[in-house]
Amino acid sequence: MSDIKVGIIGIGHMGKTYALQLDKGLVEGAVLTAVCGRTKQLEDLKMQVKGNVQSYQDEAVFFQESGIDAVIIATPHFSHPELAKKAFAKGIHVLVEKPAGVYSKHVMEMNQSARESGKVFSIMLNQRTNPLYQKLREMIQTGELGAIKRTNWIITDWYRPQSYYDLSKWRATWKGEGGGVLLNQAPHQLDLWQWVTGLKPKRVHGFCHYGKYHDIEVEDDVTAYVEYENGATGVFIASTGEAPGTDRFEIAGDRGKLVVENNELTFFKLAQSEREFNATYKGGFGMPEYERIDIPVESDNPGHLGIIQNWINSILQGTPLLAPGEDGLQSVEIANAIYLSSWMNETVEFPVDADLYYEKLQEKMR
Amino acid sequence: MSDIKVGIIGIGHMGKTYALQLDKGLVEGAVLTAVCGRTKQLEDLKMQVKGNVQSYQDEAVFFQESGIDAVIIATPHFSHPELAKKAFAKGIHVLVEKPAGVYSKHVMEMNQSARESGKVFSIMLNQRTNPLYQKLREMIQTGELGAIKRTNWIITDWYRPQSYYDLSKWRATWKGEGGGVLLNQAPHQLDLWQWVTGLKPKRVHGFCHYGKYHDIEVEDDVTAYVEYENGATGVFIASTGEAPGTDRFEIAGDRGKLVVENNELTFFKLAQSEREFNATYKGGFGMPEYERIDIPVESDNPGHLGIIQNWINSILQGTPLLAPGEDGLQSVEIANAIYLSSWMNETVEFPVDADLYYEKLQEKMR
Repeated sequence: MSDIKVGIIGIGHMGKTYALQLDKGLVEGAVLTAVCGRTKQLEDLKMQVKGNVQSYQDEAVFFQESGIDAVIIATPHFSHPELAKKAFAKGIHVLVEKPAGVYSKHVMEMNQSARESGKVFSIMLNQRTNPLYQKLREMIQTGELGAIKRTNWIITDWYRPQSYYDLSKWRATWKGEGGGVLLNQAPHQLDLWQWVTGLKPKRVHGFCHYGKYHDIEVEDDVTAYVEYENGATGVFIASTGEAPGTDRFEIAGDRGKLVVENNELTFFKLAQSEREFNATYKGGFGMPEYERIDIPVESDNPGHLGIIQNWINSILQGTPLLAPGEDGLQSVEIANAIYLSSWMNETVEFPVDADLYYEKLQEKMR
Repeated sequence: MSDIKVGIIGIGHMGKTYALQLDKGLVEGAVLTAVCGRTKQLEDLKMQVKGNVQSYQDEAVFFQESGIDAVIIATPHFSHPELAKKAFAKGIHVLVEKPAGVYSKHVMEMNQSARESGKVFSIMLNQRTNPLYQKLREMIQTGELGAIKRTNWIITDWYRPQSYYDLSKWRATWKGEGGGVLLNQAPHQLDLWQWVTGLKPKRVHGFCHYGKYHDIEVEDDVTAYVEYENGATGVFIASTGEAPGTDRFEIAGDRGKLVVENNELTFFKLAQSEREFNATYKGGFGMPEYERIDIPVESDNPGHLGIIQNWINSILQGTPLLAPGEDGLQSVEIANAIYLSSWMNETVEFPVDADLYYEKLQEKMR
């Protein structure tokens, strides 16, 4: 089978990285044949690529004439769904950067187009390739942790100084990016939070602070509380204003507790189910015995390249996708629910109404 | 100066412990001379004390005739303020068990009586004697941490099986105890949360789950979110239904981060103020440098005995109190705010109206 002809649209920081990786032949079964971006970006890239790559500045011409089989979309957030829809309409496979989009209504339309096209659709949720989170997920899926009682992710190590936000005018504005830390830095953790646990919130209460640590429009400090269908609760805390931040994910279950911190996975394993102990123990004070186990985890994390390779393998050989494009909806829906709750100052049912969220977002963008 | 004649009212688990400690002469400058309790408790105690201790079953007679200078109140929560008021009216110094009471209105009345009496009033907030929390407080008071940005206490290691709640019928009922984990197990942490940081909430949102892990009326699972006057936020999570639980207190500040976990205090110390770095750094991505410091802490923790000795020293020599009785109001007010917010399903301003809380509590007690 011949190599998949890959195009990239959006030649910013990430788009350029992917272009150079493909050009160096780091993705088996794929060849970079076309890019679409702004003049300066294209000139800059041209000086670094070795292969025969066509350059486009007009997206319509790019999709119409480049003859690509597959496209990586690495443009600003708002444009992801529109560009993906155009690609699917041309029968092109799509790998979209995270976040899938800014609001769920838009992402749902993209997912619908993807389904109708039958093309292979993936999303750059590159933390899913981390063996640590894969192991964590496995321990939950196989029942080692037991029914989940509580989740807690403190992900405040996304520090950004004002200087970062000053790099471009569109940064950290509602109109330019449609959100702050929830859409730009923490989508990976918002995705893993549900991917690892297999739980979706039923109710969400978000407490967002806008421009708290920076001269920006959007949120740079968030606390969210959720309740799941099974009665478990969860807390998610994200910030770009703390240094040094914390990245600690704790999941309490009926058979113990899993903690990820400092790239280590620790299992506090109970000798028996807590629910069973609770029901049968008769001694007043007391608790089930446990042992502390440091779970060994492979250090090799293929990251972005792993997602691109998996997408190409799926196109060529039908390999199951690690990050199906449709899954991008989930973190967008959680972010949308946190925003809406914060704006309305009340608990919201999950998922929130996509039209209502779209309307409220328009007000912010004005 | 002659020894302070100490009486104890309430000879349950804690009252008996204090009686035996005093009887063994473990508190300098104090002698146990009278106890007041129920027949069986008194008989049980009598077999173990060596000194000359008068026993009373009637509290009025106890206060009237025992001739004590000072009393330790170790009865059920609801009775603390009433008994303290009676003691102050007789000119007796008071050390009250935690919590100070069940609702703030009651505790305020007690504090008023204490002030009018001029007697020495302390409360058994025995975690304040822990050198670890004293060091943490000092590092905040001296400005080493800088302005606080966020607090986070996961205190879920108060595990209790159903069997514990079944020990007595009054346990974990609104009428018997006036609350659950917030009033019975976690008052220490609710106290330290504000004592260590020096911050009081401005707004509180509580999410309580009642009888979630046990056949009880009151809450056994709580998540609370607070906002402080200075804009900082905080989260407090408590549960009696998780095993093994977590006890991790994290405080993020302008000059780094302090974390207490596993009886260890760690300081992630920034080379400069984050606010200053944010304002002056011009390189886009970047963050201030930091070093990780394990703060050595004395292991000797005098605990309950330390609080009793400090109270006696204050009576005899005017030593400043480590846990002034009036401070008991603070954790009760925080607990009351969390309950009220949970019942009304909305954010409440702190402190909540004491009369309103009293009314709402009466509805629960019916």
